[in-house]
Amino acid sequence: MHLRKSLLLFSALVSTSVWALKPLPQKVPTPADNPITPAKVELGKMLYFDPRLSIDGTISCNSCHNVMADGADGRPVGVGVRGQRGGRGSPTVWNSAFNSVQFWDGRAASLEDQAKGPLTNPIEMGMPNHDEVIKRINQIPGYVSAFKKAFPKDNSAVNIDNLAKAIATYERTLITPNSPFDKFIKGNKKAMTAQQIRGMKLIEEIGCTSCHTGDNFNGEGLKMGEGNYQPFPQIPGSDYDKKYDLLSDKGRYEVTKKNDDKNHWRVPTWRNVALTAPYFHNGKVKTLDEAVRVMGKTQLGMDLTDPQVSDIVAFLNALTGEFPKQTMPILPPTENFSLTPEP
Amino acid sequence: MHLRKSLLLFSALVSTSVWALKPLPQKVPTPADNPITPAKVELGKMLYFDPRLSIDGTISCNSCHNVMADGADGRPVGVGVRGQRGGRGSPTVWNSAFNSVQFWDGRAASLEDQAKGPLTNPIEMGMPNHDEVIKRINQIPGYVSAFKKAFPKDNSAVNIDNLAKAIATYERTLITPNSPFDKFIKGNKKAMTAQQIRGMKLIEEIGCTSCHTGDNFNGEGLKMGEGNYQPFPQIPGSDYDKKYDLLSDKGRYEVTKKNDDKNHWRVPTWRNVALTAPYFHNGKVKTLDEAVRVMGKTQLGMDLTDPQVSDIVAFLNALTGEFPKQTMPILPPTENFSLTPEP
Repeated sequence: MHLRKSLLLFSALVSTSVWALKPLPQKVPTPADNPITPAKVELGKMLYFDPRLSIDGTISCNSCHNVMADGADGRPVGVGVRGQRGGRGSPTVWNSAFNSVQFWDGRAASLEDQAKGPLTNPIEMGMPNHDEVIKRINQIPGYVSAFKKAFPKDNSAVNIDNLAKAIATYERTLITPNSPFDKFIKGNKKAMTAQQIRGMKLIEEIGCTSCHTGDNFNGEGLKMGEGNYQPFPQIPGSDYDKKYDLLSDKGRYEVTKKNDDKNHWRVPTWRNVALTAPYFHNGKVKTLDEAVRVMGKTQLGMDLTDPQVSDIVAFLNALTGEFPKQTMPILPPTENFSLTPEP
Repeated sequence: MHLRKSLLLFSALVSTSVWALKPLPQKVPTPADNPITPAKVELGKMLYFDPRLSIDGTISCNSCHNVMADGADGRPVGVGVRGQRGGRGSPTVWNSAFNSVQFWDGRAASLEDQAKGPLTNPIEMGMPNHDEVIKRINQIPGYVSAFKKAFPKDNSAVNIDNLAKAIATYERTLITPNSPFDKFIKGNKKAMTAQQIRGMKLIEEIGCTSCHTGDNFNGEGLKMGEGNYQPFPQIPGSDYDKKYDLLSDKGRYEVTKKNDDKNHWRVPTWRNVALTAPYFHNGKVKTLDEAVRVMGKTQLGMDLTDPQVSDIVAFLNALTGEFPKQTMPILPPTENFSLTPEP
């Protein structure tokens, strides 16, 4: 254990420096076949907020990834149609455009792929299949024209791929620039407090930035679709394994069924982490200071002191960005149409 | 029956005229103790959209009264926490500021009174009591300061009355002016089609405007708190009673327990009615043309012809107003806070 810890520390010290930390880019990565256009953003925003995309009209993308708040839902795990609970917490949608893969287990290679999943997940939005989603969209004349406007070259614009493209395009606008850290790293040395600067140095010294690196603090230089998966716990055996049930969900292994992927997870962003309690894939940890303690122990084998935890939490608070003002979409009406909840 | 019909018709013809129909006022009625201020509107909007006001963080006011859409939810009945269904449909919040009483049975005398109800209704937002609501608000520092800003004269600004006042104030901004009818009645004779004008004349001739009168088409000259309750069905015995289960919910009687109030209901607005399917207190009628047929039969004893139904539906479509662009609220964060769904 001590050897492992030393190796991690060594690796951290040689592979990163403060200057390896980067501000949030102005430009989001965008697939060649889905350039951002205002019509797609507008359509995507309508779809994102529309509970009619769920079987009984109760759940929209925004229900679990609330863009009026932290981009998640403040709950340990997501809640879908008919009050059903999911097995994992809802990751924030803010800055998810910078993630190289999506979902906790990285099973979607793009925001487009991700957007298709919850629609037909029986415990999320509960639609029986994508054809039924498209059938419903076709019942709403305002959507049909909005799809045509957003995808003018397509003969048959209303289809599931375009629906996912529109939602992904809207999500690419959901970025939170100008955190105190971003301002600091761009040269404003007064943007962070002395404690936050101590915290920033500490996370490098002890090795957090071995994994939490790059402009979104979840990996450096990754191509879209290429995951940065890490074991959590890296060092099993602490009391936290049982206390917070860290081992029962096998993470990436559930996708690949490879033993090497057991309890591996996509490294999540640190941006706005001070707002996205509760923490980890199962939402079992309620506070950020406890999350920092857990990470120190399970990933680095360290019992962080209270002052160390405070300094790191202070730094993590410097990663809260500016949330842009948005206009509400006006959803196209369904005239003579009733969503009949299932029995 | 025929006599009754004739009386209704007579009453309609003498008591109303086209000119008794009125455009939506610019100014909403506002209680003396709750003037509209920008700080209250902003706070009210945050509260309106905040699912943290429900026990498990799943339901906000907007869940059933969606202001990005028709102000309701497109479902026969509301759906609350844990997938529970209510017994009645969600009335639209748009222009509800012009209603003299709230809820289908008029049990709230003001928007302020109404706002307090769903919070603690076990099948709606499910909070155990108002104290718990206020306790939760007090856990969110951004709300505490927003309440102080909205109610600067109150020593203890965070309380349930102020919460209701803020939500009601936001709701008073939710009005949809400039429908084709409003433009027509203000003098633009091209704002409605010939069919819509025929429909407008017809609803007066046959007596619909005996009840659906005034600027919100739900009563004329009513003081706030004073209800315009009418029996539905007015003329029981048609096939619709059973087909659409019109008699089992006793409406106003459930509040007063007076026999005279059995199956009486607050007259609902016609504004935006083309958007608010499904229809009636139980949402059993899916289309507007069928709703018109049902009303003709149950209220006036008439079997409306298809052309009559078409003309009336055309007129009702002329009551769809302009939905204002709104900015999204940014909800104050809950740091180190987790909503734990109940078991």
